[in-house]
Amino acid sequence: MEAGSLIRRVVSSLTGAAAGVVRSKEERQADRLARLLHMLITERGEATGAAMARRAVTMYSGLGVEGRRRFFDTLAREFSPDRNAVLEAAQAWHRDPTPANHALLQRFVEPPRQEVFRRMNMAPGGTAVLVGLRRALLDELRDRPHLAIVDQDLTHLLGSWFNRGFLELKRIDWRSPAATLEKLIAYEAVHEIQGFPDLKRRLENDRRCFGFFHPALADEPLVFVEVAFVDELPAAVGPILAPESTIGDPRRAKCAVFYSITSCQAGMRGISFGNFLIKQVAADLHAELPNVKIFATLSPVPGFRAWLKRKASAGVPLGAAVLAALRSDLLPPAEARAPLENLAAWYLTREWDAGHVRDPVARFHLGNGARLERINWQADASHKGLAQSFGLMVNYVYDLGDVENNHETYVKGHKVVHSDAVERAAREAQGVVESTASAPMSTS
Amino acid sequence: MEAGSLIRRVVSSLTGAAAGVVRSKEERQADRLARLLHMLITERGEATGAAMARRAVTMYSGLGVEGRRRFFDTLAREFSPDRNAVLEAAQAWHRDPTPANHALLQRFVEPPRQEVFRRMNMAPGGTAVLVGLRRALLDELRDRPHLAIVDQDLTHLLGSWFNRGFLELKRIDWRSPAATLEKLIAYEAVHEIQGFPDLKRRLENDRRCFGFFHPALADEPLVFVEVAFVDELPAAVGPILAPESTIGDPRRAKCAVFYSITSCQAGMRGISFGNFLIKQVAADLHAELPNVKIFATLSPVPGFRAWLKRKASAGVPLGAAVLAALRSDLLPPAEARAPLENLAAWYLTREWDAGHVRDPVARFHLGNGARLERINWQADASHKGLAQSFGLMVNYVYDLGDVENNHETYVKGHKVVHSDAVERAAREAQGVVESTASAPMSTS
Amino acid sequence: MEAGSLIRRVVSSLTGAAAGVVRSKEERQADRLARLLHMLITERGEATGAAMARRAVTMYSGLGVEGRRRFFDTLAREFSPDRNAVLEAAQAWHRDPTPANHALLQRFVEPPRQEVFRRMNMAPGGTAVLVGLRRALLDELRDRPHLAIVDQDLTHLLGSWFNRGFLELKRIDWRSPAATLEKLIAYEAVHEIQGFPDLKRRLENDRRCFGFFHPALADEPLVFVEVAFVDELPAAVGPILAPESTIGDPRRAKCAVFYSITSCQAGMRGISFGNFLIKQVAADLHAELPNVKIFATLSPVPGFRAWLKRKASAGVPLGAAVLAALRSDLLPPAEARAPLENLAAWYLTREWDAGHVRDPVARFHLGNGARLERINWQADASHKGLAQSFGLMVNYVYDLGDVENNHETYVKGHKVVHSDAVERAAREAQGVVESTASAPMSTS
Amino acid sequence: MEAGSLIRRVVSSLTGAAAGVVRSKEERQADRLARLLHMLITERGEATGAAMARRAVTMYSGLGVEGRRRFFDTLAREFSPDRNAVLEAAQAWHRDPTPANHALLQRFVEPPRQEVFRRMNMAPGGTAVLVGLRRALLDELRDRPHLAIVDQDLTHLLGSWFNRGFLELKRIDWRSPAATLEKLIAYEAVHEIQGFPDLKRRLENDRRCFGFFHPALADEPLVFVEVAFVDELPAAVGPILAPESTIGDPRRAKCAVFYSITSCQAGMRGISFGNFLIKQVAADLHAELPNVKIFATLSPVPGFRAWLKRKASAGVPLGAAVLAALRSDLLPPAEARAPLENLAAWYLTREWDAGHVRDPVARFHLGNGARLERINWQADASHKGLAQSFGLMVNYVYDLGDVENNHETYVKGHKVVHSDAVERAAREAQGVVESTASAPMSTS
Repeated sequence: MEAGSLIRRVVSSLTGAAAGVVRSKEERQADRLARLLHMLITERGEATGAAMARRAVTMYSGLGVEGRRRFFDTLAREFSPDRNAVLEAAQAWHRDPTPANHALLQRFVEPPRQEVFRRMNMAPGGTAVLVGLRRALLDELRDRPHLAIVDQDLTHLLGSWFNRGFLELKRIDWRSPAATLEKLIAYEAVHEIQGFPDLKRRLENDRRCFGFFHPALADEPLVFVEVAFVDELPAAVGPILAPESTIGDPRRAKCAVFYSITSCQAGMRGISFGNFLIKQVAADLHAELPNVKIFATLSPVPGFRAWLKRKASAGVPLGAAVLAALRSDLLPPAEARAPLENLAAWYLTREWDAGHVRDPVARFHLGNGARLERINWQADASHKGLAQSFGLMVNYVYDLGDVENNHETYVKGHKVVHSDAVERAAREAQGVVESTASAPMSTS
Repeated sequence: MEAGSLIRRVVSSLTGAAAGVVRSKEERQADRLARLLHMLITERGEATGAAMARRAVTMYSGLGVEGRRRFFDTLAREFSPDRNAVLEAAQAWHRDPTPANHALLQRFVEPPRQEVFRRMNMAPGGTAVLVGLRRALLDELRDRPHLAIVDQDLTHLLGSWFNRGFLELKRIDWRSPAATLEKLIAYEAVHEIQGFPDLKRRLENDRRCFGFFHPALADEPLVFVEVAFVDELPAAVGPILAPESTIGDPRRAKCAVFYSITSCQAGMRGISFGNFLIKQVAADLHAELPNVKIFATLSPVPGFRAWLKRKASAGVPLGAAVLAALRSDLLPPAEARAPLENLAAWYLTREWDAGHVRDPVARFHLGNGARLERINWQADASHKGLAQSFGLMVNYVYDLGDVENNHETYVKGHKVVHSDAVERAAREAQGVVESTASAPMSTS
Repeated sequence: MEAGSLIRRVVSSLTGAAAGVVRSKEERQADRLARLLHMLITERGEATGAAMARRAVTMYSGLGVEGRRRFFDTLAREFSPDRNAVLEAAQAWHRDPTPANHALLQRFVEPPRQEVFRRMNMAPGGTAVLVGLRRALLDELRDRPHLAIVDQDLTHLLGSWFNRGFLELKRIDWRSPAATLEKLIAYEAVHEIQGFPDLKRRLENDRRCFGFFHPALADEPLVFVEVAFVDELPAAVGPILAPESTIGDPRRAKCAVFYSITSCQAGMRGISFGNFLIKQVAADLHAELPNVKIFATLSPVPGFRAWLKRKASAGVPLGAAVLAALRSDLLPPAEARAPLENLAAWYLTREWDAGHVRDPVARFHLGNGARLERINWQADASHKGLAQSFGLMVNYVYDLGDVENNHETYVKGHKVVHSDAVERAAREAQGVVESTASAPMSTS
Repeated sequence: MEAGSLIRRVVSSLTGAAAGVVRSKEERQADRLARLLHMLITERGEATGAAMARRAVTMYSGLGVEGRRRFFDTLAREFSPDRNAVLEAAQAWHRDPTPANHALLQRFVEPPRQEVFRRMNMAPGGTAVLVGLRRALLDELRDRPHLAIVDQDLTHLLGSWFNRGFLELKRIDWRSPAATLEKLIAYEAVHEIQGFPDLKRRLENDRRCFGFFHPALADEPLVFVEVAFVDELPAAVGPILAPESTIGDPRRAKCAVFYSITSCQAGMRGISFGNFLIKQVAADLHAELPNVKIFATLSPVPGFRAWLKRKASAGVPLGAAVLAALRSDLLPPAEARAPLENLAAWYLTREWDAGHVRDPVARFHLGNGARLERINWQADASHKGLAQSFGLMVNYVYDLGDVENNHETYVKGHKVVHSDAVERAAREAQGVVESTASAPMSTS
């Protein structure tokens, strides 16, 4: 029956080709690739070793934008499960839950696309091609929502393949391949790296950089974290980034600051590694450097200004200093400090959306079980820091022994674990924020 | 809803515990593990990094036979998909094939076991534990067929994880870790290795050994192949195995003989790598040693004697020499040569079963696209060789350019690609084998 | 006796200290180090494992310029052989050449400094410290010629330790450690590298870079050579260095150009590796890429302009075009081409000094057995190229089969092996150069 | 002058050949090699890169015993320093100690053999060949003492090349290459290893094995030490060697026992690494396992029985029990315990010879700064243990803080640092040993 349905598909694809529609060169290439993939997922594809897979990967890599688009459409249309077969198998298993029926159900419900991707992965460099394919697919997805089913399959597969158990944690330093360091410069999203000399300072003895690597993507970090060893919980990022700063001794440091966490592969969007990375690195550093007692971040507050702007528009009486700060793109003056810090404390602890705090960075760290410790005034004077949060930055503390409980409190109790100082600041803001029943917020 | 069903499950498992059934210590351990796994697959399991996964793996590794059995039962019972939810999702998607419905269907139909295994894999050494878990499961499966659904999930996952694209082909030689070589000695299934000194000869310059390795299973080959460089298609395995033989020069050899292919991991049964390995090694050796023109095996015929015995029982008139050979466990005399070779040729080319030739080794190589080239008399005088096939061995030739066509001929045309000599021999046997309408064969 | 002389030395060094001379802090440090070294070379130094060596290396590394100077003086004065003992031993061995007398002679004649250096080398990082020590010593040597004896010993030792048999030839590419690539940028002496992006082009697939490394100096190349694969013997370096050039396919190239050879360690001056490097790389590339038939350099002519200037000063009638070129620092005009090329041919083939050609680059390649093939007009328009040789560059061809004979011709026959074209050009220049018996030249 | 003397040498070697003496094929090969070496050490040898060195190494490796013997003779005769030149240079330098005269002296006094060896070392595998050459030379040396001068040069060179700073300390375990482990089995001199399975126990988690490796001799340990982690200072070697013993946890051990130290390369005889190895390993283990407080050996007493036998022959009244033990090759009975232990204490602490204790193992450890801690009864019941020392073994303790002082006490104070118990035992023996003025002993 499978063979039969295969032949039907091949024929229909050929018929489509013959139906008088004039296809462009790119479309013809895409269709040839689709036909090859139909063959690839038969036993014959297996018999050729990786040869046919290699051909498929080469053909895919040769497609232009138009060809890729057609190819994605074909993946969505022709390599989906057979709906009737699925329904019948589901009914049969519901009626009679035998292992055989279970096997049949699983077989029919799995989209043939998944086997396509698994076979393509057998070609040399196949994994990198599939990660690139997903990146291209995500671009298309914006305008072509029906491709979501292809993305669901690919996401599922990549998520399984890039299981943390298959990732290698590697220290990245000045002895790492230039090919790897180049990626750091290219990908660093939090605090831009200005070429190799700037990077070198971030890899000195009082800094650390670690990344997760997958054996099939040599030299390509999936995610990396930058750490600085300092004397105390840091209140500003400038001294950490300064290229000329004196190099300290990590064996005397009290605090390890995670000052940047960056995901590298656009094609892995939605598959998170940062959580594992932070905890693994914290555990390893803890074992290596018993003097280090505090593991904390120095993090941006990317959504603060935008939220505050909406508040202002909604007529919340924020006060003159805050309104002036909202109109300026410079560092705000001292009189804005208290009100802005208080509002930030409120924003980070009280503003929830669908079971999560609204700020994306807060969401990530609090969901990981970190504690919101401190809000820092004039901590990041970069253009980006001012634009996002008036230069405010935040410390999240990772106390490995509390991580599991903090997470529970956050997820089940819907409460942000935070310091007394942050709590006091948030309460200060309460009168302001709630002075008008800000209806637009309550529904968000 | 998921959380609700989680609580229901936890409660029911606790209730079961409280229901007056006295559980053994092992059973209590297994139940504790199952409860942990219920937690592990929630978001909370993710928040703990790999810590909870580590606990689960440690607990599983501590289970005895009885505990494992109970644990497997729980995996089958509590971590299967919800049949009602699956049916509803299948109906919804059948009615309305939106991406959202597709996503829902995929989510409900995937057994929670798979997520259990993926999470366990996150612990250090998790992959090895899961491969071991499957081996234990296969042992249980014989008497407890309902566990087949657990095996289906695990097989699917391991098959996906051990995709050829993630395997590393490595040469194994005397500089390889003793830990790896030890596995060769332990696993070699075709021609037993008598300790390290015997192995050393098989790794000299005129021999080669290659294995597939997975990054998560360091030092552990998944499958390995042993190759000898010789002057011509070999007719006997003795000279190849002789520990004292002179070491030849591979740059002058004409023929690369694959004289042993061994799968190492019982926990990977049914997930085949040998096909890829042979072709990859042949391609690599072809590039390295242009002088080598023939890539062939020297293979056993494991099912020949058993088949012939059944023929004899069924009254097929095999002749005195063959009948005498069947009664003896020594090398058969010269007068048995022609009839035995003819019958072997028939057996290997004409005896089919459910779309495949009956002999398992023939099935493997012919399915891979090899050609049956020659039947060799007195090729393996070992006890095993005599017991399986009267000392006969067979050459299958891998001609990389013909592999795809040969495979098609075999799979679609249901024909064995073989040499003229084999064909002549098979025809000689025809009169004998068909002289009685061998009814017992047709049903087998 | 040795112990006695040791004690004498220690005492005299102490006495010196007590003799009322007020020593600076640095001098006291240098003297403490010297005393430690006296101990280090006794059996006691051996008994402490590497601990005492580590102390010595740390103390040396802490010395400033003044301290180092005093320390070098002490090395020259106190750690030299005992002249009387040497003379006696030489007389004894001359009289009675027994193995025992030979051993005694060797023992007395070897400066204790050598043992000092060998012991210092036992500390972690000791080798790098000694290479640095020699660099510092070479700086001092200019003004303090009596230190030459220290340098003789160190040179001898380093030459022995950095024997080619201990060097590892490694390919350097974009996957090499940044720490290594950084050295290339710092050291490249022939054609400056403008940072990492510029370097990256020189490491693409149609370029190669190889270096010799010593196991005790990780990441630090001793010497490296840059190679470009091109279609024919190149006439200009610009296209090779252009960062934006198209990347070619080395499997189609006809010619491998060695366009830069750079020694990296100032502390290894006078210990040559380039000779071995070129031949090894040529042999390896020859084996890897049979399509490459020509192995040649594109080399500067560093001494040409200076020599020509001296000729002009001596009144040699060079002609208006050449004289104009000598006055300009721009690319010379077309009318200067023929005379300059002819004079360069003469300079490279006919100007000898103490058994070697005068031009240092020519001396290196001709001494290695290369053939002077071609003089290239407007081959290097860089400031340096113009300043050295009016933009002229030269191809030396390495024909591995001829290298030994060419060397013999050069060393014993005192003849430059060169092409007919170069010979014709040199003859053209003869009339000009010899028109005045330029006395200063004739003695060279 | 050098060139002249070179030609003289070549001519004389040719003349010798022509002088009517009929040379065997092997002798002709040896002479050809010698002629090649004369060329190799000229500048021409350098110009050929490593090609000529490769030829020389191949020719040497092809020599048989007779050829080697002739070759060694030639090395002694033709490649020695020129005696007249040396004397003149020594006189010149004595008269006028300029750097130039120093350089000249060093140049003339260095035997050309050394340059021969340095050049041979440039060939691939050259270092291993030279180590083998020295082994062969040591064999010849017994009957041909005039070859000592060749050995002096080679020893000097190898000692310099195998400087501890160039050695790599590597842990050897079951993941090490079989090629390395094979050497352990072959070389282990103290407690024989019975094949790979026996070795495996010695590499388990409660054992350690470390070796020094030189980069030019891959896979070949120079020396290795075997360590066991135990609860207390061990009194017998049997439990440590037992292949079936339970595997302990090194993190709970109190004591690291060095129970075997083995030099591997006969060609490195007299060049000691064991001293460095023990101290480095002790320092590393100390850092890794703070729980381990005692670093000690369990060592044989190889010279005890032989010494005691001589005492008996000299008429020392050893008593019935000891005399019975001397006649037996079984474990001695309990009544022999006290007298034998006392005599061993005397032997190890009071018997000196030329500034060193007489027992070679004691000499090694005491010279390294260890303390003689305890004598163990029935500690080694092997044939060898009984034959050497009636089954007695000894603990030497390495206390890293005391090593330097202990060494001084031993070397300068000529005293063995030992425990009170050993001292008491030695005093017990005093009456016996000194009861007759044992003349043969007093002169030693």
